[in-house]
Amino acid sequence: MKPARLVVYVCFLKDATADVIPKMVHELMRLRVCESTDGHLVRLPELPGSLLIVPQATLGGRSKAGRLQYHGNACRAEAEALFAAFAEQCGVALQEKSAPDSGSVVLHGTYGSRQMLELESDGPGTSLLEF
Amino acid sequence: MKPARLVVYVCFLKDATADVIPKMVHELMRLRVCESTDGHLVRLPELPGSLLIVPQATLGGRSKAGRLQYHGNACRAEAEALFAAFAEQCGVALQEKSAPDSGSVVLHGTYGSRQMLELESDGPGTSLLEF
Repeated sequence: MKPARLVVYVCFLKDATADVIPKMVHELMRLRVCESTDGHLVRLPELPGSLLIVPQATLGGRSKAGRLQYHGNACRAEAEALFAAFAEQCGVALQEKSAPDSGSVVLHGTYGSRQMLELESDGPGTSLLEF
Repeated sequence: MKPARLVVYVCFLKDATADVIPKMVHELMRLRVCESTDGHLVRLPELPGSLLIVPQATLGGRSKAGRLQYHGNACRAEAEALFAAFAEQCGVALQEKSAPDSGSVVLHGTYGSRQMLELESDGPGTSLLEF
């Protein structure tokens, strides 16, 4: 079976602190958003399903006069540290909660780098979570 | 040159009316979010770049106790009509504003159907616009 995979785009705003990360990880692990082979919505750790985390500072943009401004985003150094902590805590949680033979891992992009993304989705569903 | 392409995920909430559609289309056409071949951010109609519109009712979900609820979404019949009007008005605007030989078109999914999405992105940027 091809692993089910969840893609998470993450952006930290100005007032974000490390306290928010365990809440994000908890929500991500308990949310029933992954489709199992029999069509039920299950939690990510219930599947042999890896998680891809994409740093996406553009999510914090506000449109003004035809351009996007990013005044509300955390500064780069802070966002980079928060992103690294989030990816690490997701890895620990997924390993703890998944079956030992699931082979599920956390994959992530590099904060601040331009990178390629390829995505193939059967019945795409995009959800928005704010913390 | 491979056409630059913008992917728009759209969800209509309960209080949405047809009045909002011209505002959405206007913003989409004027927003500098597309990268030209020389790396500048330009408006979609400035490129030979098609627009893909994906109906995405899941965007309206609110997380509650590990599940997503959709009480805030427009009902299916209304959302379907708004989606059709939005896709049509995008098509008209893109044709009006693009160069005649651009070959740019509006493509869209079918509201309420399960469908495949394949996406390949060089430096993905996700923006959030609320109307």
